[in-house]
Amino acid sequence: MTTTSYPEPVLVPARQARSVLLRTGDRLRITDVAGGQVGDVFAYHADDLTEQHSAAHTRTHTSRLFPALGEAFVTNRRRPILTYLADTSPGDHDMLIAACDPERYAAYGDPGHASCAENLIRALAERGHPAPSHIPQPINVFMRIPVAADGALSWLAAPTRPGDAITLRAEMPCLVVVSSCPQDHNVINGAGPSPLSLTVLTTEEKNR
Amino acid sequence: MTTTSYPEPVLVPARQARSVLLRTGDRLRITDVAGGQVGDVFAYHADDLTEQHSAAHTRTHTSRLFPALGEAFVTNRRRPILTYLADTSPGDHDMLIAACDPERYAAYGDPGHASCAENLIRALAERGHPAPSHIPQPINVFMRIPVAADGALSWLAAPTRPGDAITLRAEMPCLVVVSSCPQDHNVINGAGPSPLSLTVLTTEEKNR
Repeated sequence: MTTTSYPEPVLVPARQARSVLLRTGDRLRITDVAGGQVGDVFAYHADDLTEQHSAAHTRTHTSRLFPALGEAFVTNRRRPILTYLADTSPGDHDMLIAACDPERYAAYGDPGHASCAENLIRALAERGHPAPSHIPQPINVFMRIPVAADGALSWLAAPTRPGDAITLRAEMPCLVVVSSCPQDHNVINGAGPSPLSLTVLTTEEKNR
Repeated sequence: MTTTSYPEPVLVPARQARSVLLRTGDRLRITDVAGGQVGDVFAYHADDLTEQHSAAHTRTHTSRLFPALGEAFVTNRRRPILTYLADTSPGDHDMLIAACDPERYAAYGDPGHASCAENLIRALAERGHPAPSHIPQPINVFMRIPVAADGALSWLAAPTRPGDAITLRAEMPCLVVVSSCPQDHNVINGAGPSPLSLTVLTTEEKNR
């Protein structure tokens, strides 16, 4: 029996982001530690960040606002990058709302507030990548934005319970950035920003 | 009385794109000449193309899948760029589906087919701009993609009648590219791709 390394989970502190590198077949479990927390997820081809997850292309691919379990998220080149593999949360996720950014908090009269856009830029810099010219539409896990029949969007608190998790499988080598959304000017993060946890399950791990 | 120039309408041939430069306050009327034709609309700040319409930011701004009449489309810097001023069409428009691109037609087994993404790149080149690294989610005027309660998207034929038009007002100096979508592998363009027409109504024109 092969001894396999099992990496320690990566804590994503409240209001911050962390990144993980996945090989094809690796699974990434994103856990809402305390419950009620939105995670902004960005996925890039590990070797060529110009190929990246695209919400518009994923909607076109799946003919859904958000993939169903077993379906793939695809890139701006229409190739699968992550598969929506498992989910112990109530299943509310969003792929319509932009990452919060300095302009968002300036409009609240709160300049200097942490944001998912800046968290992404910082996480990419820590991996040696320059600031991107485009902030992609994130996969907003655990974010509850119901769409009414007339197209109106509601902003509700994340209904996640402590320990709820979503699991994604890498379909190409990829760099995934997860930001514990620092939004505290509306209700999306329930009682307030809290940490997430990232667990990488390797291919070997899956088979033992 | 000041004599004002009234530019000739710009014909957007089927399967091609054209662009117009708008000053703040100018209005752009996009007319579906023969009916049943989708237009992919891209809007950039005329002096700085890194600022551009962003569907994700517009949804966040309006809390709707598509703005209501009188509401604004905003940029990736959360500033109004176009206002949805008037509409004589049935009112079906989409802001969820990606621009068609070479990868889309390659998947149909039809490489070399014209696409809105390439049309955008060509239209920008004709204005002296390099190929963009990011193809924005377009404003797909006259495109009928209803969203079911479970988030499923349907692809239906554009319900526009000949002469139906949507009018947008520029809220900043902007370069707007409109592509007569060449998609003919599904039903969105009804009987097949056909032309659109662009009419710029200047501020002076509006007041005379």
